[in-house]
Amino acid sequence: MPGPARSTRVSGPVAPTPEATVRRRPLGDGFRLTGGMWRRWQDLNRSVSIPLGMRRLDDAGNFANLGLAGDGVTGAEAAARYQGPRFMDSDLYKAVEAIGWETGREPADDLAAFVERVGALAERAQRDDGYLNSYYQTVGRERQYTELNHSHEMYCAGHLIQAAIAVTRAGTPGGDRVLAVARRFADHLVAEFGTGDNPGIDGHPEIETALMELYRETGEGSYLDLARQLLEGRGHGRVGGGRNPSYFQDHETIRKADTLIGHAVRALYLEAGVVDLAVETGDDDLLAASIARWEDMVAAKTALTGGVGSRHSREAFGDRYELPPDRAYNETCAAIASIHWSWRLLLATGQSRYADLIERTLYNGFAASTSADGERFFYVNPLQRRFDHLEGDDPGRRHEWYSCACCPPNIMRLVSSFGHYVATSDDTGVQIHQYAGGTLRAGLGSGEVAVEVETDYPWSGAVGVTVREAPGGSWRLALRRPAWSRHTNVTVNGVPVQDTADDDGYLVVEREWAAGDVVQLDLDLTPRVVRPYHRIDALRGCVAVERGPLVYCVEQVDQVDGADVDDLRLVRGAEPVAERRADFGGGPTVALTVDGVHVTKEHPGGLPYRTTDEDTAPARSRPVPVTLVPYFQWDNRDGRPMRVWLPLADEVPSP
Amino acid sequence: MPGPARSTRVSGPVAPTPEATVRRRPLGDGFRLTGGMWRRWQDLNRSVSIPLGMRRLDDAGNFANLGLAGDGVTGAEAAARYQGPRFMDSDLYKAVEAIGWETGREPADDLAAFVERVGALAERAQRDDGYLNSYYQTVGRERQYTELNHSHEMYCAGHLIQAAIAVTRAGTPGGDRVLAVARRFADHLVAEFGTGDNPGIDGHPEIETALMELYRETGEGSYLDLARQLLEGRGHGRVGGGRNPSYFQDHETIRKADTLIGHAVRALYLEAGVVDLAVETGDDDLLAASIARWEDMVAAKTALTGGVGSRHSREAFGDRYELPPDRAYNETCAAIASIHWSWRLLLATGQSRYADLIERTLYNGFAASTSADGERFFYVNPLQRRFDHLEGDDPGRRHEWYSCACCPPNIMRLVSSFGHYVATSDDTGVQIHQYAGGTLRAGLGSGEVAVEVETDYPWSGAVGVTVREAPGGSWRLALRRPAWSRHTNVTVNGVPVQDTADDDGYLVVEREWAAGDVVQLDLDLTPRVVRPYHRIDALRGCVAVERGPLVYCVEQVDQVDGADVDDLRLVRGAEPVAERRADFGGGPTVALTVDGVHVTKEHPGGLPYRTTDEDTAPARSRPVPVTLVPYFQWDNRDGRPMRVWLPLADEVPSP
Repeated sequence: MPGPARSTRVSGPVAPTPEATVRRRPLGDGFRLTGGMWRRWQDLNRSVSIPLGMRRLDDAGNFANLGLAGDGVTGAEAAARYQGPRFMDSDLYKAVEAIGWETGREPADDLAAFVERVGALAERAQRDDGYLNSYYQTVGRERQYTELNHSHEMYCAGHLIQAAIAVTRAGTPGGDRVLAVARRFADHLVAEFGTGDNPGIDGHPEIETALMELYRETGEGSYLDLARQLLEGRGHGRVGGGRNPSYFQDHETIRKADTLIGHAVRALYLEAGVVDLAVETGDDDLLAASIARWEDMVAAKTALTGGVGSRHSREAFGDRYELPPDRAYNETCAAIASIHWSWRLLLATGQSRYADLIERTLYNGFAASTSADGERFFYVNPLQRRFDHLEGDDPGRRHEWYSCACCPPNIMRLVSSFGHYVATSDDTGVQIHQYAGGTLRAGLGSGEVAVEVETDYPWSGAVGVTVREAPGGSWRLALRRPAWSRHTNVTVNGVPVQDTADDDGYLVVEREWAAGDVVQLDLDLTPRVVRPYHRIDALRGCVAVERGPLVYCVEQVDQVDGADVDDLRLVRGAEPVAERRADFGGGPTVALTVDGVHVTKEHPGGLPYRTTDEDTAPARSRPVPVTLVPYFQWDNRDGRPMRVWLPLADEVPSP
Repeated sequence: MPGPARSTRVSGPVAPTPEATVRRRPLGDGFRLTGGMWRRWQDLNRSVSIPLGMRRLDDAGNFANLGLAGDGVTGAEAAARYQGPRFMDSDLYKAVEAIGWETGREPADDLAAFVERVGALAERAQRDDGYLNSYYQTVGRERQYTELNHSHEMYCAGHLIQAAIAVTRAGTPGGDRVLAVARRFADHLVAEFGTGDNPGIDGHPEIETALMELYRETGEGSYLDLARQLLEGRGHGRVGGGRNPSYFQDHETIRKADTLIGHAVRALYLEAGVVDLAVETGDDDLLAASIARWEDMVAAKTALTGGVGSRHSREAFGDRYELPPDRAYNETCAAIASIHWSWRLLLATGQSRYADLIERTLYNGFAASTSADGERFFYVNPLQRRFDHLEGDDPGRRHEWYSCACCPPNIMRLVSSFGHYVATSDDTGVQIHQYAGGTLRAGLGSGEVAVEVETDYPWSGAVGVTVREAPGGSWRLALRRPAWSRHTNVTVNGVPVQDTADDDGYLVVEREWAAGDVVQLDLDLTPRVVRPYHRIDALRGCVAVERGPLVYCVEQVDQVDGADVDDLRLVRGAEPVAERRADFGGGPTVALTVDGVHVTKEHPGGLPYRTTDEDTAPARSRPVPVTLVPYFQWDNRDGRPMRVWLPLADEVPSP
């Protein structure tokens, strides 16, 4: 297959070819954050989290492992010296990707040195035939490509390729060497699996999007062909999942599967690859199949925070409506993967619902992953933490690092590339999907557009969009109308515009824009009390509170008069009152207060079940003010109990 | 420590020495089932399940593995030929134990042949120093005793010892050889860990109760000493649990731990050993510590079915009040282990609450494990199964066998020994704890007592107890007063007796009994509607129905007019009506019908969360009769959705 004619080079992790059947085009680095919550986090990511990650990767042995491979260490010595799980290489590559996007915005010697170091080690370790894996070249040398369902060999290759694309598109010093290593590995995979006789498929998707992007970057059709082969090969038992093909998304083809099951991160990375394939080959049926699964996930398998993956066991999606707040797994990497998928669907369709889910996930399920100081991370993101929480499989508080450290560097690469997910363009104009202070530049057919966005979002709903440069002629400025904003005021140069979204969910203003034109958007941040669909058993009788894009929670530390979080109830119809606080864990916040009831009831003794007419101790109720804070900011103080979902006070009392 | 003077030999799995500080003495094989539900299951166990298990153990490679060890196969050949997990030996031993109790009641050549075969293979495989483990003598030869936290070496030894005790006490042909092998292994463990320098502790408790029982059987004090060392050694980081000592119950000592955490089966087997040690050494403080943990488990970590272990992940106990019906793990082996523990506490204290929990667990969480035909088994016993259930980590229906087959042979040994848990004696008389048709013989100080129990329990609450033989003089007949029976009628030879339980929870009649005396007990089987304690979030707004010792559930197959189980609600205050059915999965049942409402509500589209005032599709309600069947009998028809807990119809409707 001949490569596409590349008319423009676009930076950013997802850059469809000009031939791709997408409705929106990413701006690459056309959007720069200049202020607000995300710029603050991006700065923290660069100054604290990434340097911390670089040290941790040294401490955890990720570099040393690659060194072992370069030194040709095998056998007992390798077994003694290799550290961590078999996919340790991938964490290095994710950090390189994060550094790519960072240095693309602003060069930094210390960050570039990390890229040079990884590139040099990888180059030295890479076999002559292009194969590269620090585990399977040392400890697992005899098992190369024999246990693909859990080997992560192609998974690591995928992260290497994505890292290489980042440092290449960003022009990071040393990026050329990383790209050369990545291409040799990609060519090796094509030779082994694409044109060779090996029909194997990696049990952990990731290579698919990577190969698609490498195709987009290089025009080399064999990468697309191999990605297609790996994607279309699912559902034929080729992953070797044994009795559990669904864990590996090998139970059904990507065209017929109707719901996401099995390991959540795997399922979601796979879907991102499915959309890439669909748009690069103009396969509308395949796109529709992925959209149907997205709709099913949103309708029945997504937490209020956007978190997905209900089960700790096997890190998996659960049954439809199995959405426990306490035992939700909601892995940070799954939130990231969900954003990857939704972003590709947004490009393909132009519909705001994908940006809505990205927003919900970014501000809640994803944002909660990192402490306010940028030094600790959640792997698991439940919506409830009880008293006397058992550490076990959920530490309950953020940790500095993990033995399986997939999440922290994944967070770093998403934060560093956040600007890529803010806006797009098409032939008619530009679209703003997420509200964050920044500058936008996009090339339209008629010339260059520059727009400035000023906002204190999500703390304020006021968003000012000022046109700074405009080509001649009419073009459209499209602003996402968040599904949660009930009353939105829009003015253009002070003149009200009707609050009506188009079929895609955007407020569209078309005119001959001139520099200095201002669109003012006032989103409705009135706090909202929400209830779950009745089939979500785990949330029966409960409500949660949201404000703008933020999901709120109660933390024990904020409650007064000894009111235990586990005994708080909200008064039906009570309206939460917002109060801005200047400094909350290093940044601002808006806390909410709402009328509640503290209900205490003595345990009846013995089993916690009683007949409905049995005489048990009476419940004692007293009114209390309930304070809520944004979910993403929890565990920045003492990490005691937390709840997103609270029972209503007038629910039928239990014995 | 000198061995106790054995005055009497008592059969059965738990036989405290005469010196033990227990308030009740087991009857060993003094209770024989003659009819009813348990006799039926015991017959099915003998005629179907055990023979099936014997075949499965052959098919799965358990015998072949022991053969490999006997043949001295190691290295690559062993790796290629060894089958299943490393604790495969234990399943053979559990089957031998089951056969022991069976052949003790009634000899059978085919069953005895299995014992002979295992004994011969084990004898041949056993090393000269007494060590025996088919995995660590073959595949894992170099790792013997180096990975005790997950090796199961002492765990397998424990099951071997318990099997040896069963075939010894039952007089099974070939039992002497099994006992000799077991004692050599026990002596080896004493030499290695007891008097040797190795402070190691097996990560999976089981050896503790086994050594205690071997001490009881042989009087050899070194077995008690080693058991004590292994029990008291917990909580000092000696299990090697790394960052998760709580998984292995190594986070705290057996004297200080205040709640059960970590792997449920491990925690419960450990507790059984703790009680054995406490009563054999007269250690009341240790007994009190175990009782406090039992009370905590019952109050906050036990499902309505008696099932324990809320988490699939790590097969573990969860937080207090973390009791999800859908994702409850409630492993069958945990139900068995819970019964083992409660039985020992019942012997130690004489209190009916332990018999109450045994009953609840036996008739629900445990009984559900096996299909009506005795051929399929549950490993996981949740209280809810949804539509479109994902197999994943919970097959949703009973399976014929499991790759990790700990449960089926464990079921077999408990069913075959069921009679041991029915009644006890002490100096004052006999105590009946469980109601089942059978004959009881016990030796009192004054002579031999024989009693006959006739009942159709649990289908009927009428229990007739007839004295068949009585020594001269006054003695007490104590009948457990189930906590659930609100109005109990008792007559002695037709004369009403007051329904008053003693401090231990028993109806006690003391008189000079004569052959032919009849006590008639009529327990109140009026169906009961029960509610959960308010802190159990996962059950908010729901009720469940019980009748006698049985927990009920709705199965989709019984519902009419297309009423989906997931949309059923019960009418508050409605009284379930019982109806006996003659044949339900090979035996009788009593079904219940109660007024319900079928509530359907269209999914609002998009995320399943809506503001409380948002316009969503109205709920449609219609009255429907709801049919319930005993939980333990579910999945004997089509295995479609099932629920124990149902919302009340007048709960606040969700959007």
